[in-house]
Amino acid sequence: MEKMKIICDDREPKSMDTVAEMVGGIEFERKRLKTGDYIHGDVVIERKTIDDFCGSIIDDRLTNQVAKMKESFKHIYILVAGKIKDRTSAIHENCILGKMSSIIVKHNISIITLDNEPQLVYLMKRIFERHELLKGGNT
Amino acid sequence: MEKMKIICDDREPKSMDTVAEMVGGIEFERKRLKTGDYIHGDVVIERKTIDDFCGSIIDDRLTNQVAKMKESFKHIYILVAGKIKDRTSAIHENCILGKMSSIIVKHNISIITLDNEPQLVYLMKRIFERHELLKGGNT
Repeated sequence: MEKMKIICDDREPKSMDTVAEMVGGIEFERKRLKTGDYIHGDVVIERKTIDDFCGSIIDDRLTNQVAKMKESFKHIYILVAGKIKDRTSAIHENCILGKMSSIIVKHNISIITLDNEPQLVYLMKRIFERHELLKGGNT
Repeated sequence: MEKMKIICDDREPKSMDTVAEMVGGIEFERKRLKTGDYIHGDVVIERKTIDDFCGSIIDDRLTNQVAKMKESFKHIYILVAGKIKDRTSAIHENCILGKMSSIIVKHNISIITLDNEPQLVYLMKRIFERHELLKGGNT
């Protein structure tokens, strides 16, 4: 079976290719992306570790990233690897949860936290597949 | 300041009242609900532990619960306390992630996993507050 081609920002760590191989059925095509980290069709995914996620709340990068993704994509997902309680960032958990509620409700964007990168990449693959099915009218 | 009144299914564990007190600013009014566990305005929240969540995938209760919530509510959130890797259910993690992708993409419902019940209840409060703000036109 042909592998699903996913466009991947070229600044994503090389280790993500190994994860993709583990998950199987997908192939990353590296390119410099203006927004988001992974793209397939009209779906964009922003991948973050829990510490990236916290950092992007502290310096408010996340607000800007969300705005930019909304300009160009219809379907946006933020996938976070790691637990809130395992963060090393000095940010109160209520700040994290408050920002999550804002993005989820105001922007109608799903934020899904996973245990690790393999779970994250597998979910990414399934999200892209689901959107393909929906587009094909096969629900 | 007046506490936010949240309708809570009367089968929810009593310990959730203690969590609500810890979080503060909210009050549960217990009633038998036909669907969902917590309601505020036109927003419904289904609360699950990770093992409930897995169990409801295994016996396919989740599909039915989602369908019922969609009949009656405009805004639906599924909040899960606990991590996939901490489950005791004998279900492969790819099954869980596959079902999550289906609910998130096909039904456009957010599933958010949290570390514990206090995080879950705090996020619930913030989600309900955000919807109130949006309704009031104050974004």
